[in-house]
Amino acid sequence: MATAGSRSLSPGTGERFARIRGATETLAQPLSPEDCVVQSMPDASPTKWHLGHTTWFFETFILEDTINGYTPFRPGYRMLFNSYYNAVGEQHPRPRRGLLTRPSLEEVLAYRHQIDDRVMELLSAGRLDAHTLGVLEVGLQHEQQHQELLLTDIKHALAQNPSRPAYRDDAAREQASAGISRTAMDWLPWDGGMCLVGHQGEGFCFDNERPSHRQLLQPFHLATRLVTCGEYMEFMAEGGYRRSEFWLSDGWMEREQQCWSMPLYWQGDHDGFQVQTLGGLREVDLQEPVSHVSYYEADAYARWAGARLPEEAEWDHAAADLPVTGNFVESGRLHPAAVPVPAEQASARNPAAEKPGLLQMFGDTWEWTRSAYGPFPGYAPAAGALGEYNGKFMCNQMVLKGGSCVSPAAHLRASYRNFLYPKMRWQFSGIRLARDTA
Amino acid sequence: MATAGSRSLSPGTGERFARIRGATETLAQPLSPEDCVVQSMPDASPTKWHLGHTTWFFETFILEDTINGYTPFRPGYRMLFNSYYNAVGEQHPRPRRGLLTRPSLEEVLAYRHQIDDRVMELLSAGRLDAHTLGVLEVGLQHEQQHQELLLTDIKHALAQNPSRPAYRDDAAREQASAGISRTAMDWLPWDGGMCLVGHQGEGFCFDNERPSHRQLLQPFHLATRLVTCGEYMEFMAEGGYRRSEFWLSDGWMEREQQCWSMPLYWQGDHDGFQVQTLGGLREVDLQEPVSHVSYYEADAYARWAGARLPEEAEWDHAAADLPVTGNFVESGRLHPAAVPVPAEQASARNPAAEKPGLLQMFGDTWEWTRSAYGPFPGYAPAAGALGEYNGKFMCNQMVLKGGSCVSPAAHLRASYRNFLYPKMRWQFSGIRLARDTA
Amino acid sequence: MATAGSRSLSPGTGERFARIRGATETLAQPLSPEDCVVQSMPDASPTKWHLGHTTWFFETFILEDTINGYTPFRPGYRMLFNSYYNAVGEQHPRPRRGLLTRPSLEEVLAYRHQIDDRVMELLSAGRLDAHTLGVLEVGLQHEQQHQELLLTDIKHALAQNPSRPAYRDDAAREQASAGISRTAMDWLPWDGGMCLVGHQGEGFCFDNERPSHRQLLQPFHLATRLVTCGEYMEFMAEGGYRRSEFWLSDGWMEREQQCWSMPLYWQGDHDGFQVQTLGGLREVDLQEPVSHVSYYEADAYARWAGARLPEEAEWDHAAADLPVTGNFVESGRLHPAAVPVPAEQASARNPAAEKPGLLQMFGDTWEWTRSAYGPFPGYAPAAGALGEYNGKFMCNQMVLKGGSCVSPAAHLRASYRNFLYPKMRWQFSGIRLARDTA
Amino acid sequence: MATAGSRSLSPGTGERFARIRGATETLAQPLSPEDCVVQSMPDASPTKWHLGHTTWFFETFILEDTINGYTPFRPGYRMLFNSYYNAVGEQHPRPRRGLLTRPSLEEVLAYRHQIDDRVMELLSAGRLDAHTLGVLEVGLQHEQQHQELLLTDIKHALAQNPSRPAYRDDAAREQASAGISRTAMDWLPWDGGMCLVGHQGEGFCFDNERPSHRQLLQPFHLATRLVTCGEYMEFMAEGGYRRSEFWLSDGWMEREQQCWSMPLYWQGDHDGFQVQTLGGLREVDLQEPVSHVSYYEADAYARWAGARLPEEAEWDHAAADLPVTGNFVESGRLHPAAVPVPAEQASARNPAAEKPGLLQMFGDTWEWTRSAYGPFPGYAPAAGALGEYNGKFMCNQMVLKGGSCVSPAAHLRASYRNFLYPKMRWQFSGIRLARDTA
Repeated sequence: MATAGSRSLSPGTGERFARIRGATETLAQPLSPEDCVVQSMPDASPTKWHLGHTTWFFETFILEDTINGYTPFRPGYRMLFNSYYNAVGEQHPRPRRGLLTRPSLEEVLAYRHQIDDRVMELLSAGRLDAHTLGVLEVGLQHEQQHQELLLTDIKHALAQNPSRPAYRDDAAREQASAGISRTAMDWLPWDGGMCLVGHQGEGFCFDNERPSHRQLLQPFHLATRLVTCGEYMEFMAEGGYRRSEFWLSDGWMEREQQCWSMPLYWQGDHDGFQVQTLGGLREVDLQEPVSHVSYYEADAYARWAGARLPEEAEWDHAAADLPVTGNFVESGRLHPAAVPVPAEQASARNPAAEKPGLLQMFGDTWEWTRSAYGPFPGYAPAAGALGEYNGKFMCNQMVLKGGSCVSPAAHLRASYRNFLYPKMRWQFSGIRLARDTA
Repeated sequence: MATAGSRSLSPGTGERFARIRGATETLAQPLSPEDCVVQSMPDASPTKWHLGHTTWFFETFILEDTINGYTPFRPGYRMLFNSYYNAVGEQHPRPRRGLLTRPSLEEVLAYRHQIDDRVMELLSAGRLDAHTLGVLEVGLQHEQQHQELLLTDIKHALAQNPSRPAYRDDAAREQASAGISRTAMDWLPWDGGMCLVGHQGEGFCFDNERPSHRQLLQPFHLATRLVTCGEYMEFMAEGGYRRSEFWLSDGWMEREQQCWSMPLYWQGDHDGFQVQTLGGLREVDLQEPVSHVSYYEADAYARWAGARLPEEAEWDHAAADLPVTGNFVESGRLHPAAVPVPAEQASARNPAAEKPGLLQMFGDTWEWTRSAYGPFPGYAPAAGALGEYNGKFMCNQMVLKGGSCVSPAAHLRASYRNFLYPKMRWQFSGIRLARDTA
Repeated sequence: MATAGSRSLSPGTGERFARIRGATETLAQPLSPEDCVVQSMPDASPTKWHLGHTTWFFETFILEDTINGYTPFRPGYRMLFNSYYNAVGEQHPRPRRGLLTRPSLEEVLAYRHQIDDRVMELLSAGRLDAHTLGVLEVGLQHEQQHQELLLTDIKHALAQNPSRPAYRDDAAREQASAGISRTAMDWLPWDGGMCLVGHQGEGFCFDNERPSHRQLLQPFHLATRLVTCGEYMEFMAEGGYRRSEFWLSDGWMEREQQCWSMPLYWQGDHDGFQVQTLGGLREVDLQEPVSHVSYYEADAYARWAGARLPEEAEWDHAAADLPVTGNFVESGRLHPAAVPVPAEQASARNPAAEKPGLLQMFGDTWEWTRSAYGPFPGYAPAAGALGEYNGKFMCNQMVLKGGSCVSPAAHLRASYRNFLYPKMRWQFSGIRLARDTA
Repeated sequence: MATAGSRSLSPGTGERFARIRGATETLAQPLSPEDCVVQSMPDASPTKWHLGHTTWFFETFILEDTINGYTPFRPGYRMLFNSYYNAVGEQHPRPRRGLLTRPSLEEVLAYRHQIDDRVMELLSAGRLDAHTLGVLEVGLQHEQQHQELLLTDIKHALAQNPSRPAYRDDAAREQASAGISRTAMDWLPWDGGMCLVGHQGEGFCFDNERPSHRQLLQPFHLATRLVTCGEYMEFMAEGGYRRSEFWLSDGWMEREQQCWSMPLYWQGDHDGFQVQTLGGLREVDLQEPVSHVSYYEADAYARWAGARLPEEAEWDHAAADLPVTGNFVESGRLHPAAVPVPAEQASARNPAAEKPGLLQMFGDTWEWTRSAYGPFPGYAPAAGALGEYNGKFMCNQMVLKGGSCVSPAAHLRASYRNFLYPKMRWQFSGIRLARDTA
């Protein structure tokens, strides 16, 4: 949820609204109506549902609140496309989203366009007050989150098909680096001490990034880059999945129940591993950052490596002044990159140079921290339904930082807090090591 | 599985093949690609899968066996569209059929057309021997079974949608009879004695209808018609779903676990019940035969009514000489009928007159018998993969007789044995009462 | 449920009551209070529960019905020890019987003794009328059923313990035959024709054995003896558990879900199999009848052997005139026997000689038939709560015949119908082959 | 796990060992062998298993490590009584502990006595070095944890019995206070600032309480006492269990799946609630601290009350200098107390007076904090198997503080960290409120 403050959206708001809304549809374009309807597991949603739900957000929180006697596009959508807002009312059960063959993709796109038109009208007419413009901003940030989810979810859906279809044939191409030994991972030191954690300044952030507060950190080191597939295969080769001493108790049980022996989307054995990507099935590139590992696997890997995962505050502190550059959805690669994506592809929000040596902090894969997702001291959720956006999930999940190769660049910042259950693997989640300074 | 015998298919075989294959596509026509991909439960299959699987049958059992060095349309389809034939090889897991967004509906239709063309070529060229023509006949009967399943499965899928969409708006229209009190049900007597059960004569039948054999029957009565919704509501009103004395032990537990309190597809309460049909949601017509009840409910109803369900052999004996007329898929009603469908709509295969007083033996709803599905004395399944067609299911299921409002008329006969697990409700299954002659 | 008829129990009724009731306690004697309380699965009950429930039967159906203003031993027992009689009232949930540490074993034995005393008083005083004496007879038959269950259930419970304790050290001793090749199995022919099936005559039988009725049988052969462990191991060695062509579809899935690769209670591999018995763990004796196989395994074995399982009516017909002799609970062996138990151990109820060549029809193991358990033509359950004894289970189960090595001899007869779900393996269930006469 | 340091156990070690070991057996004394064998859910263990496992601890970690060529009491116990130490080897599956009728209670007590004798011999002979004495101390602390678990687990087991038996008839007696309105809850302020968290000083602590470290706290208030049953009933009366706005998302789902509408062990409705205690079933005392609530319920209650749960560090800071006095297992009450237990019953470890106004910090109920259980900065688990004691559970659980009415007084301290999954309710877990200082 947004912290509105005294924001006054620039004249470019309409243009930005149109661009972000359009980006979602662009992501759906390679997909057939059939692709858009399926749901491969309860954690994932159909593409069509993402298209509808993000629209529902604007209809419910902007149009209904702004227009007297607003007539809904379809009354039934209020329930169908409500994700989890109890304050708005009943919800279609999440695991049954994939059974909605009607409305059709075409109808949902028509829904999008009509709601977009009406929002644009209000924007053009200057009829949105500061509070509502704040909600609109939340809606756009929410839209960007669902852009990422649309890609992670369709990746999962297509991976269930034995023919291993690609989302886009040009995605996840192997890079020239493959097979070339990469510079060894280094450790960068930080002094710790009293640090400021959480979001500061004027820009948008969600309510869970606030209030910024001071926290005492011990001296620590962070790895200069993400753990690669090649390194992860060493862990596997040394019995990583069979030796309980590396694992949390819950992780060890999950591993057994799920029969985990490699990252999600991998197949094969030590004679050769293949990985399902958004570009289809191909060989694993040893130099690429490993992805689609659970917290349990990340944690076990770290213990095997004689290290640990970073604290959220350590990561936040280390990244605070970095420019947000890296391999994001805009590069079109849609897969972690063995070598930095070319400058013209890399997205950058800040002009400053990246701190020498600290690579891949943004983009490529989300980075598991060892911090449970909870409220910052003094946290207060927003009033009303939007108070359900973040606060009610503050239990049982772990914080991830930095964004991934399917995140929109403009959506990210150092204080951004993603959160997942420790057993989840379907998002682009990877590993950066940390250690205490001796 | 067919009993081939010395059959020689008439010159009209090609025409018949084309007609039956075409009928399947006609049934799929009102559906969008999205409708065709979903699977609402493991017992049901997506429309697209039905279209593919029935084609796979002809490709696997006709083309592969007949054409030297046959090149499959797509090698992957051999596994994707195999239902349960272990002798053919691996199968795509049944509960995951709904995750196959690819091949698209369009590609599956192209698959159908190419296989049809090749079968027609072989037929035209007279290249199919008697055995293979027998297999072709099995394929056509199989196609008709899937026509019925396509409709029962899409009914289930659409019913999951809170908007309650119709398959076809003109289906299941309420009939003039509604509200009019119907002639009371009568009982017709049979003497029993030594009867011949199972299929006799030349026409096609499945292997499970053979060998015909003699069986001793006690004198019995059959009800003249099916139990109506109005009668079933009396059972409900008298606590039918709350009084254990009417129920089999397994049924009583199933009822509790599934929270059954009315037939599948019903909603509402004693102030008014609605039923989801292939034409959408509408009021329950008291005069219509009740449908979508499990064996447990049918059995409990019969006990409440002071009667019992028929033995398979009793039903077979009573129906042996009846013409196969009634409310079948060809009527387009796609729902049990309160009053007999007009003659021009009713399908009839035999010229003979129906035995006076015995109504609805064919069509409207399948009729649960109290006979477990097992082998007739001397039963032997066919050799090869087609031996898996019927024989391996001879456990835990109950026999149903007579066909339903979504069965093709030409597919039915008195000796036909349908079989379902006693808890199943998604097929058009209803109730005819029987009793011992005192 | 009993058919009471005009029975007048002999003066020895009291003696018989005391003897049968005492036999149950004798069976519990080798067990500690701790052994008597556990429940290893929902299908099995604790010994203490068996002791209590059989007593509850007499308290509920004899004392409560006979004594005006009867004061129950403990009011709470009415619910605790009710198995499944809805007409009597609520039941303690079956899967939670093992959580009842109170009443203690001692208290339950006190309960037994007091109820026994009161029943004996009524008997001595001649206060039980003919109907009630019929119910008493049902109670004694019921007691004998639970004697068998007590042993099958404690066998299962002790087998869960990694130390593999014995119920009685002298049970299931290996016999001299081990390793000696046995006479080949032979086939005995029957002509079939019109046969009388079900219980005839004066003696006690349950309601499900009535009415006796005529049934037409085709000519058939029965195997002279049960299938041995050695023969079953050939089936295993030839891939019996890996080749779908032998299996019913439901059986094939059950096998996979349960990871079946040998009979229940077996362990080891083809270098040597051991079996858990009521005498502890020991080597499998090749000559012993195989036991603890499900219907699915029995059926698959038969198909592998080119045979089939008998129809219930075939078995009934073949056994009708045989004396009930064999290896029953009275032999103290408590395990199928490779060689007939010595005459002084074998129990015999009839003086007539066994039909030459037909061995092990009674005792050793229950014999799966391929007949689903259902009502005989004209079947009517008893009125009142005892009507729930048999009738409400007539669905989803298969009939077994002949009794086992833990059945009381006096409990058995040719028309006796045991019934189990096809996946069940914890009772002593074995295999006799049949085939059609060519 | 213990931090050993340079500890040298006093000459009284043997006496203390004997006393603590004896206390466990005293707790088992009111129970029958049958009571001691059952397991009512996977989270709970049978009494007999607690008796064996705590003995196994000394055999495995003291005797095996100290005595050359040690011959185990029973080799099979190594696996049977291993809880979760993978480094020691295989474990009997936790959910199947209740199936172990052998060894008998008597044998397990014999096991205890022999191991005790041998440990005492080593102690008397001065044969334990400093490291092993440290392990012995861990074993005694471990024994005390299982004393608490023995009581919580038997409470759960007895509560499954519809006769609602008591563990001890004199436990949980209603106090004179019942019905008397209690002094209102007050709020006590703390300034926060840089605080020292974790265990300091010489005494025993587990590895998870180390290292002590500085942490910055915001100003906060703590409630002076625990939330009472009466207050909790107000939450219930205002729809606490039906209003999603108070609940975490995971809690709301758990509530629905488990059908929670009141604390565990409660029954009844607003006309009167009863609670199952270790003294049997009795009326709820409005003045008693509410207990057996999950984290989700505690958190929802706090939100309803306009407050929050304390941070672990806040609680630790507030309690740091308090004497450990309160209602512990030694009082014999075995239930939270409405009024402080009399001085002669209350256990006290420190001479200092309790901070005025801050009540019930130790004893009565564990207090949920809103802190996820994780490692302190710089945490390192012990080497070897004892490293599995605490560290591998640092995920998905929440920290609780202060001990309960079934904790041994000597086992507790301000830095003590208990941890449970948020859905757990079978331990004595209650609620103390906190809030930010405005």
